[in-house]
Amino acid sequence: MDEHRHRYVHGRSHRESERLHYQASGLADLLHGDTRYLPGTRVLEAACGVGAQTLILAKNSPAAGFVSLDISPESLALAEERIRAEGVKNVTFCQGDVYCLPFRKESFDHIFVCFLLEHLENPLLALEKMRGLLKEGGTITVIEGDHGSALFYPDSRDAHRVIDCLVDIQRQMGGNAMIGRELRHLLLDAGFSKIAVSPRQVYADSSQPESIEGVRNIFIAMVEGVEDQALAGNLVDAETWERGILDLYRTTEKGGTFSYTFFKAVAGKGQRMP
Amino acid sequence: MDEHRHRYVHGRSHRESERLHYQASGLADLLHGDTRYLPGTRVLEAACGVGAQTLILAKNSPAAGFVSLDISPESLALAEERIRAEGVKNVTFCQGDVYCLPFRKESFDHIFVCFLLEHLENPLLALEKMRGLLKEGGTITVIEGDHGSALFYPDSRDAHRVIDCLVDIQRQMGGNAMIGRELRHLLLDAGFSKIAVSPRQVYADSSQPESIEGVRNIFIAMVEGVEDQALAGNLVDAETWERGILDLYRTTEKGGTFSYTFFKAVAGKGQRMP
Repeated sequence: MDEHRHRYVHGRSHRESERLHYQASGLADLLHGDTRYLPGTRVLEAACGVGAQTLILAKNSPAAGFVSLDISPESLALAEERIRAEGVKNVTFCQGDVYCLPFRKESFDHIFVCFLLEHLENPLLALEKMRGLLKEGGTITVIEGDHGSALFYPDSRDAHRVIDCLVDIQRQMGGNAMIGRELRHLLLDAGFSKIAVSPRQVYADSSQPESIEGVRNIFIAMVEGVEDQALAGNLVDAETWERGILDLYRTTEKGGTFSYTFFKAVAGKGQRMP
Repeated sequence: MDEHRHRYVHGRSHRESERLHYQASGLADLLHGDTRYLPGTRVLEAACGVGAQTLILAKNSPAAGFVSLDISPESLALAEERIRAEGVKNVTFCQGDVYCLPFRKESFDHIFVCFLLEHLENPLLALEKMRGLLKEGGTITVIEGDHGSALFYPDSRDAHRVIDCLVDIQRQMGGNAMIGRELRHLLLDAGFSKIAVSPRQVYADSSQPESIEGVRNIFIAMVEGVEDQALAGNLVDAETWERGILDLYRTTEKGGTFSYTFFKAVAGKGQRMP
């Protein structure tokens, strides 16, 4: 197995695991509230990570059967532990590579992908492979962010610089942090039909303390996570980095505003839709 | 009266008037669907232009009384004609300047402002003046766009360049085409309380022909409207301009994606809220 594929721009530290759980719980309704699978359907969650989304999916569709796959055994162990702790029974975990999925053709009714494509060198190939695993009439649901959507006040060149560091590092690792806007195009090219994309925008200002905490603990923490790489790679100097991060925090203070857009796409295989 | 204040980045041509009407009808529900005024309340619409929003407001709250003000007699004439043609009776038109409003203190229950602040050199002063016209417990509703929110696929440096031309020209005229994100801060500084801001995002791809037409006839047409000024001011060369506009249209074709965010704020005067 190619060790390179284990690399993950956000790392797999404890803080990152907590961040992902926080992210999932804070955004759960906005991103996943309208995803429900019928009893008896078989759903592949491709790249479940530490199970942040798995928990929500499995609870929202308790009579569907989930197979949640990830390439990292460490992440899978954390995911399994969390799912067990919550008493959720309808998930089977499986280690594997999204480019080389260990399943029979047309063996799933639905596939669910969240925050995966942004990290792949070849998201189109992954989608084509997944399409092969879907039954005729099945659906794929894809959710990705787009760092180009970050809109804030006070605006700040330095804040954009530090976000761009994350985008650049993710690109160097083969990913694309601005993939949200591309979902329709990718799904079209991968042969899916009846593609419906909807943007899901989060907005925070100081009148909404929980949303503000979300911006700090999810988005800003994610940017802060690449500080060492950004400085080591000379993508930015230390002073600019510090100002940029401070300016990002400034958007979460009084009079500040922060918004970000996720894109959710649902598409079908074949003409029949369930 | 300062003639400079009559200047308007989008011009007041017939096409512009049609564009504004189209804009209002296409976005009416998203932007105005949740604005309703109680019977008997007196509402100031500050800067009604050609009446694009006036019509929606007055129809949605047929028992409220509207005073719709604009600085341009030509725009007012068009607005009045349109309102009359639709048989709407609850609007009085009035010519005047938003910095020097011809009304008694505390004479309105509510004030409504849409696509105005982005054109003003001193939006804070205008908001302070308006606050003076509100009764205690009254509300102000402000809706503005933010051209920094335009997010599209395929992404294109030239497309961003032509959008930046509009932003630059509007700035040269004293305005701010990226004011949407500032609404909370401006309303705070103007002394309003209980400020609630919500972003309203429009999204279009080729699966939604009406939304695609909206992008072409509203957003792209608006950018195209400053071509002569952009070229005359050497903000961009003709080839880049042409490529940028073509690239914007490209986002409305197959596989393309376009999104844009408006910001709507509702704020109160004093502690009592109606």
